[in-house]
Amino acid sequence: MTLQDARTPENGNGASGSSEPQIGWHKGYVSGSRPDLRVPVRRVHLTNGKDVTLYDTSGPYTDPHIDTDVRRGLAPLRENWIIARGDTEEYAGRPMRPEDDGLKHTSPRGGLKNLDAVFPGRPRQPRRGRDGAAVTQLAYAQRGEITAEMEYVAVRENVTPEFVRDEIAAGRAVLPSNINHPEIEPMIIGKNFLVKVNANIGNSAVTSSIEEEVEKMTWATRWGADTVMDLSTGRNIHTTREWVLRNSPVPIGTVPLYQALEKVDGKAEELTWEIYKDTVIEQAEQGVDYMTVHAGVLLRYVPLTARRKTGIVSRGGSIMAAWCLAHHKESFLYTHFEELCEILAAYDVTYSLGDGLRPGSIADANDEAQFAELRTLGELNTIAKRHGVQTMIEGPGHVPMHKIKENIDLQQEICEEAPFYTLGPLTTDIAPAYDHITSGIGAAMIAWWGTAMLCYVTPKEHLGLPDRDDVKTGVITYKIAAHAADLAKGHPGAQEWDDALSDARFEFRWEDQFNLALDPDTARAFHDQTLPAEPAKTAHFCSMCGPKFCSMKISQDIRREHGGDLAVDAEAGMAEKSAEFAAAGNRVYLPIAD
Amino acid sequence: MTLQDARTPENGNGASGSSEPQIGWHKGYVSGSRPDLRVPVRRVHLTNGKDVTLYDTSGPYTDPHIDTDVRRGLAPLRENWIIARGDTEEYAGRPMRPEDDGLKHTSPRGGLKNLDAVFPGRPRQPRRGRDGAAVTQLAYAQRGEITAEMEYVAVRENVTPEFVRDEIAAGRAVLPSNINHPEIEPMIIGKNFLVKVNANIGNSAVTSSIEEEVEKMTWATRWGADTVMDLSTGRNIHTTREWVLRNSPVPIGTVPLYQALEKVDGKAEELTWEIYKDTVIEQAEQGVDYMTVHAGVLLRYVPLTARRKTGIVSRGGSIMAAWCLAHHKESFLYTHFEELCEILAAYDVTYSLGDGLRPGSIADANDEAQFAELRTLGELNTIAKRHGVQTMIEGPGHVPMHKIKENIDLQQEICEEAPFYTLGPLTTDIAPAYDHITSGIGAAMIAWWGTAMLCYVTPKEHLGLPDRDDVKTGVITYKIAAHAADLAKGHPGAQEWDDALSDARFEFRWEDQFNLALDPDTARAFHDQTLPAEPAKTAHFCSMCGPKFCSMKISQDIRREHGGDLAVDAEAGMAEKSAEFAAAGNRVYLPIAD
Repeated sequence: MTLQDARTPENGNGASGSSEPQIGWHKGYVSGSRPDLRVPVRRVHLTNGKDVTLYDTSGPYTDPHIDTDVRRGLAPLRENWIIARGDTEEYAGRPMRPEDDGLKHTSPRGGLKNLDAVFPGRPRQPRRGRDGAAVTQLAYAQRGEITAEMEYVAVRENVTPEFVRDEIAAGRAVLPSNINHPEIEPMIIGKNFLVKVNANIGNSAVTSSIEEEVEKMTWATRWGADTVMDLSTGRNIHTTREWVLRNSPVPIGTVPLYQALEKVDGKAEELTWEIYKDTVIEQAEQGVDYMTVHAGVLLRYVPLTARRKTGIVSRGGSIMAAWCLAHHKESFLYTHFEELCEILAAYDVTYSLGDGLRPGSIADANDEAQFAELRTLGELNTIAKRHGVQTMIEGPGHVPMHKIKENIDLQQEICEEAPFYTLGPLTTDIAPAYDHITSGIGAAMIAWWGTAMLCYVTPKEHLGLPDRDDVKTGVITYKIAAHAADLAKGHPGAQEWDDALSDARFEFRWEDQFNLALDPDTARAFHDQTLPAEPAKTAHFCSMCGPKFCSMKISQDIRREHGGDLAVDAEAGMAEKSAEFAAAGNRVYLPIAD
Repeated sequence: MTLQDARTPENGNGASGSSEPQIGWHKGYVSGSRPDLRVPVRRVHLTNGKDVTLYDTSGPYTDPHIDTDVRRGLAPLRENWIIARGDTEEYAGRPMRPEDDGLKHTSPRGGLKNLDAVFPGRPRQPRRGRDGAAVTQLAYAQRGEITAEMEYVAVRENVTPEFVRDEIAAGRAVLPSNINHPEIEPMIIGKNFLVKVNANIGNSAVTSSIEEEVEKMTWATRWGADTVMDLSTGRNIHTTREWVLRNSPVPIGTVPLYQALEKVDGKAEELTWEIYKDTVIEQAEQGVDYMTVHAGVLLRYVPLTARRKTGIVSRGGSIMAAWCLAHHKESFLYTHFEELCEILAAYDVTYSLGDGLRPGSIADANDEAQFAELRTLGELNTIAKRHGVQTMIEGPGHVPMHKIKENIDLQQEICEEAPFYTLGPLTTDIAPAYDHITSGIGAAMIAWWGTAMLCYVTPKEHLGLPDRDDVKTGVITYKIAAHAADLAKGHPGAQEWDDALSDARFEFRWEDQFNLALDPDTARAFHDQTLPAEPAKTAHFCSMCGPKFCSMKISQDIRREHGGDLAVDAEAGMAEKSAEFAAAGNRVYLPIAD
């Protein structure tokens, strides 16, 4: 297996590779109170001499001064912080087993690999809380401590460390940061911070490879993914995750149930607490930062889905429903929930309490099955918090616009303002191939009303596995939704970005418009399709209207002719101004040679 | 000039040409009370034997039994209805002049063409209301008459003709239908009907041709555009419009000011009422169904834009503002408004009162300039209604989510519920190249709250002229927004479409999913990218999760095993069911050969 290809990827719908600096963006760092606390930012140097500083998720890959190598992994930024706290210990860890990579049945295709060589980089031993202590950001916050991670996100979000601590302590925000994933650049998820975006990657039994998944992770964070979920379900599931974790600057989420099901050959009824627990520990030792747990699917809720149009559409939800029915009892996720809390607390794995009964169609939105599960998630959230485990709550799904607000309002009430983490929601079912858009609409709205993180949906949703271009389109669409919500929430500083771009637009600074865009490559390419010549980049009009009809040009001329007086005195002296305007030639546009 | 290319267009991002039937869609007709009233519908024949009937905007082009020819134009469906009313007369009409096509300066490139041969199809004379009578759908409705056009849209919208008449009479809906555009299939715009979508086309001084514009119109209506605006500003403006009108099954809108400005060589201050009026008559005789008129830009409002971030961004608005300042008086559009009403009434041209001072950036949303103009539009709406002229009101623009509702609420109040027709609004400025999405979000929301028609935005907005693919992407995005709004408004029948697609999804009827999609070609292509083989079209899973993790498959199995009992009795007998499930082999998925 070689991952060298990830260094020289084929270009997607952009012009740049995923491990090179982005043209027009400059990596900068903002320092905290200690020398090893350097928060990355994206700087855009404008042609008017000003700088715009933006949030940066792309990791060391876009820093020309850092030589990254996916075979070596990223530097463990947080390692010293974790060790310095003195409440964790290294230990031998659970041995890697063939079935962790789905190789139970020495198949002709697979064959046992050298398990020591799962990842060629720096050797490491897993770490856990000493004597089962909760080594979570929540536990620290509850004790009033401000960690380096909290200070890091405070710098990143332009708030005080105390505010970060208080939000985490109240359970209103999570800072997913497994002590076995020291490579991450800490980030925070909560309604009083910038809205975050998650991108899903993952191979499946049907297609794709480890190389592709690592590359998709890097590519997704380049365009703004704040976290990445590895939803792999095929072979090499353990090894793929190891490579992704060692190379990821953002928190990684998983659904441990998927791997556990692989270990019992896909037979849901053969799942046991022991197999599940073993899988959770395996993944926690690797460094998974948050795990989706469908512990709210209770036996008595399953019949509530029987008359639905699309039944149960969550993979985890349907697996647990099948288990509950087969055994006619509550799932091991629910009955062992407190034990699971203790495990997660020892690694600082964050719960993402899964909505196994979310609606999968407009017809099924906001039904009894969905809200019954939500109430159970509320109870589990309280238990998790008591154990010091950070918790967020997953939400739907498919919901028409007029039923969206009820979702966030109920969740916030029932779950004591725990961060809501929603998939879309899709606002209509009639547009397969455009579900990034059907869901981007719902995502923007629900984020405005308080959702803390949005799980992206790509154009391939319901149809196939997303490729590189789909990942980018999904991320950009969701960054739009997240930022539109930041604006609508009046998040401090959010509008500065829009203002900088609008100024550039009004002043015909084309290069600044491109570089300030969420996707400079495509903006530039679109402009060049119609007016490719370099002089067009400084032209005071564009191909849309041409010079005669350029409203911005005319506006500028009006402003130049009439100056600030326009605003100072709306009526007085206008006749005089009118005469001046005529004297100046009544020019409202620059003639072009035609 | 040849337009034969339009018959065999290159494929865009879909698999079908714009003048051929769409694979998976079947043209049907629903009859009214008279034999010449046949309303087209799109029928999808499902593989389960059922039919789904959808609204169809694509015109005769997608009817395999009609042989269309862009050189001949479409059949004048409404001609007999118009003649039968007996209130109109044919007349010689205004002679075509060279400057109508921008050929004033016998340029080396242009040269005078044979003006009689502007369009090679059926010769026609313009028609107008006898003795200046108002021959508008509004005038008929106000008199209590139900026209053939009203019955047509009643069939189309599945409401009673009386309801249509009442909505038009109240000014809450418009039925744009110039008596000189008998080719259209009547449609209605109002908040109590399906939300409509407009697509802009038009050449500019910089690029594009007549052929391309006619082709874009056909292409846009194929994907669902309910009206098309021809915003041409370059040469051949008259001829382009003639070709578009004679071939368009949907109402055509224009901004006459653009052509008037061409006639005075782009010098705004040289515009006069006489030149403008002549242009309006020229276009009304050709058959333009609605015209954007920026009559609300008053002299005293211009200074209110001086401190804006992006000044005036409406082309028409900036031209009129320059005119007002140059002459230091109110514009001829405002001072001659009643005379303009009389002209429009004689052809049944609908007003689209333009928002010349709409915000062009997030920073400028909902400011005094914008709302001052809106109040003037409210006054003009009342005057227009008095003259029997159908009227809709244009809206912004760039508005963050939390400021959107104020726009529609104010407009509805000030303009006596006249149809609102908005451009987006864009909910953030940071994503050039994705403004179909930034605006699709705002469009869905404002339509939910009452906007009657949405003007699309393409990915090229702010960057260049849309090509064929951009037009399709813009239309599909806006059909999503419109339908999401129909759902949220609880429009009768809207959810049936989603339900049909969700049923197909749950039952793994892949071909039905594709054919029910807004864009079958892309949905099918995306599916085939991952699982190209024909058997995958009947597989009970897809490439996303593979068979083991297919929640719908598991859901189906649960339902099959546990039957309707699940819903009947949530608790009792579950243990028994559990035993049955185990006896049946506990199968939750079909094993695949692996």
